[in-house]
Amino acid sequence: MDPRTEINSLLQEGAPVLFGALSPLGQRVYFPPDVPAQSAEARGKALNGTIGQITDGRGGAVPLPVLAAGLSGLSAEDLSRALLYSPVEGIPEVRQRWRAWQRRGVAADLPSSLPLVTGGLTHSLSILADLFGGEGRAVAIPRPFWGNYRQVFATRTGAEVKTAPAYVEGRYNTVAIAEALHGLPAGEPAVAILNLPSNPGGYSLTVAERGEVRQCLLDVAAVRPLVVICDDAYAGLVFEPGIPRESLFWDLIGAHPNLVPVKVDGGTKEFSFFGGRVGFLTFACAPESGVARALESKMKTLVRSTVGSPVATSQVLLLQALRAPGVEEQVEAVRALLEERYRALKKALAEVDPGLLTVLPSNSGCFALVEIPEKLGLTGEQVRRHLLEHHDTGLISVDPRYLRIAHCSVDAAALPELVRRMEQAVRELA
Amino acid sequence: MDPRTEINSLLQEGAPVLFGALSPLGQRVYFPPDVPAQSAEARGKALNGTIGQITDGRGGAVPLPVLAAGLSGLSAEDLSRALLYSPVEGIPEVRQRWRAWQRRGVAADLPSSLPLVTGGLTHSLSILADLFGGEGRAVAIPRPFWGNYRQVFATRTGAEVKTAPAYVEGRYNTVAIAEALHGLPAGEPAVAILNLPSNPGGYSLTVAERGEVRQCLLDVAAVRPLVVICDDAYAGLVFEPGIPRESLFWDLIGAHPNLVPVKVDGGTKEFSFFGGRVGFLTFACAPESGVARALESKMKTLVRSTVGSPVATSQVLLLQALRAPGVEEQVEAVRALLEERYRALKKALAEVDPGLLTVLPSNSGCFALVEIPEKLGLTGEQVRRHLLEHHDTGLISVDPRYLRIAHCSVDAAALPELVRRMEQAVRELA
Repeated sequence: MDPRTEINSLLQEGAPVLFGALSPLGQRVYFPPDVPAQSAEARGKALNGTIGQITDGRGGAVPLPVLAAGLSGLSAEDLSRALLYSPVEGIPEVRQRWRAWQRRGVAADLPSSLPLVTGGLTHSLSILADLFGGEGRAVAIPRPFWGNYRQVFATRTGAEVKTAPAYVEGRYNTVAIAEALHGLPAGEPAVAILNLPSNPGGYSLTVAERGEVRQCLLDVAAVRPLVVICDDAYAGLVFEPGIPRESLFWDLIGAHPNLVPVKVDGGTKEFSFFGGRVGFLTFACAPESGVARALESKMKTLVRSTVGSPVATSQVLLLQALRAPGVEEQVEAVRALLEERYRALKKALAEVDPGLLTVLPSNSGCFALVEIPEKLGLTGEQVRRHLLEHHDTGLISVDPRYLRIAHCSVDAAALPELVRRMEQAVRELA
Repeated sequence: MDPRTEINSLLQEGAPVLFGALSPLGQRVYFPPDVPAQSAEARGKALNGTIGQITDGRGGAVPLPVLAAGLSGLSAEDLSRALLYSPVEGIPEVRQRWRAWQRRGVAADLPSSLPLVTGGLTHSLSILADLFGGEGRAVAIPRPFWGNYRQVFATRTGAEVKTAPAYVEGRYNTVAIAEALHGLPAGEPAVAILNLPSNPGGYSLTVAERGEVRQCLLDVAAVRPLVVICDDAYAGLVFEPGIPRESLFWDLIGAHPNLVPVKVDGGTKEFSFFGGRVGFLTFACAPESGVARALESKMKTLVRSTVGSPVATSQVLLLQALRAPGVEEQVEAVRALLEERYRALKKALAEVDPGLLTVLPSNSGCFALVEIPEKLGLTGEQVRRHLLEHHDTGLISVDPRYLRIAHCSVDAAALPELVRRMEQAVRELA
């Protein structure tokens, strides 16, 4: 059997719904037996002349001292790892430790693959867009949503973004995915993206809402294969008691044969490592299963053909953190800092004139979202420009009438003034 | 005028041949006015709530101490830059200093854009594949070539790789690109990839051969638009006197209206920073020109929709090196180390039985290539497997009968033994 047929057979047998939802490119790719595959076979040989990277002849790096100086906090072994190529699938210890991090508090019998390392959360999404997107594929996303989803799925692959409101009458709309896919012929596969805590909303589901969203996805899965991408970029950044912090991914495993949950996460927000570009991609299958092997072959090919291999330097730095005994406390300290800003913002927003700004519910993440009342006849973009030009204040506008406040990058003490200026800007324009 | 039309107009007017060679995706993309564009407008504002990254409220990072510890060689300011998002186009100082590095010894009147930062050389290639590849587009590459070109251009975008032999009768074939495109209808645009020093060949052109290759490209450009990708991954690693070290890119600027040269390079090999994933993309236009702006808009969109933004951590480390007064000497020391291995390998290969191995010309780079004589009836893959299984030795096989030796990762003292084992393996199988 040729290698592509072999890889595809593993999916046809072990995950037929997933296989049926693959794009033409997703069906086409498998990891070819060229340099990285041959190098992997040569690991540990006495004479290894496979890899085109400069080593000391014994597998260590040959660093420029002026470049390595910045990494002086690393051991010699980790410095070498930071400067040499990562395996295409990621450094094994990083993958294992990230899996353990993801599975804190998760039931042992829920299967999850060894996470594949990517070049950040967007890279994870772009690999999923290559695997499951493509011309005409429906991608359901509650709106407003992070604009880059559109570039990743629609602009690049030709998929069709379908949306429904994330908020209805000031509350989270738990059936948005079903509404977005309304009218799509039964049986046609679709992709759904759920970003929780959300960007731009800063919203996480309550226990009751999680049940409703899960039921909504089951209802969709009753009529079509559905790949559900859980974009967990802001995992753990939850500020209200009673709001679950665990990913929806775990709730969806095994929920319905037509439901294919995928977890997208990374060090970017969870470890406050924005510049590092370490993301992960995780499927609901056991690490050594045939399905896991087949998916890894496909994902590795997409990593290799987009960026070669994921960044080793940042993986090694993330690894230092994952190994450290005090890491959970340090992650919690960042969360607590954000909670302080969240509370300051919430307090300021509570005093806003509702005739000028509608405050949408928020309980988590890095953002809060306000809507300009429709009756004022203003767009978010008009208010944003006015704030830039006349109030020395930068915010993000989201079509049609939203403004996103990134409280994660503003000092708590400055947030009341920021809200005052927003209110003032709308008053001046209305 | 809508922003896409505006961007495309700049190219239609300033670089009509380049515009005509764009793929449908290449024509479609332009940088949309969402988060990064709005954040760029908000830089320097007193209150800036635009970016979804966690800062101290004054633009500095909030590092996990256990993660930042590895970067203890950086100043506080550079540490912040290493941990926070890079601009999508790259850190300005990195771009400026890389441009100065590229242009050492280059005539001031040759235009080149401010290099766009990517996630490594493969990422640069994959952006070019998105811009100029696509269904049915001819991509000419002398063979043997690095297998990943096929995944990047053909598997992903549907382009058609066309090849001709890089070596004819033991000499570099300077008309390979024209031969590869033979039969393609006149006027149809094409892409050519020239990787010099080459992988897997370890070959750089002599002065006379450069003239011949340039003439070959002019001949092709006489009948069609031709995008010439100069893959300068191994720039500078030249070991024989009289062989020019400068990129062919500079020779092609302004050579013919139908010729569009592009330069792909990066810190990977030039700065021995394999794990860092910092690549660049440079076009032959002045930094502030309309063409440069339009191309940057398109390339940025492709960076954003594949990896979000390029890795900041590695950019900052590369920046330390680019700023350091002694960097040229340190880069030269790495080159000298490789030259020692190159000479050891060359000496050992000179003594090989030509009935068992044909040694192809090599003078640069990280590799040497040998061919198994056709009359022996062996494939490179058979010899590779035999070396792995019976001689504790790893090499890369390249179809149909090549073996690539990565002398860059083997100690000089071990290379004679490696060559002896290759010879022995072929003798055992023949």
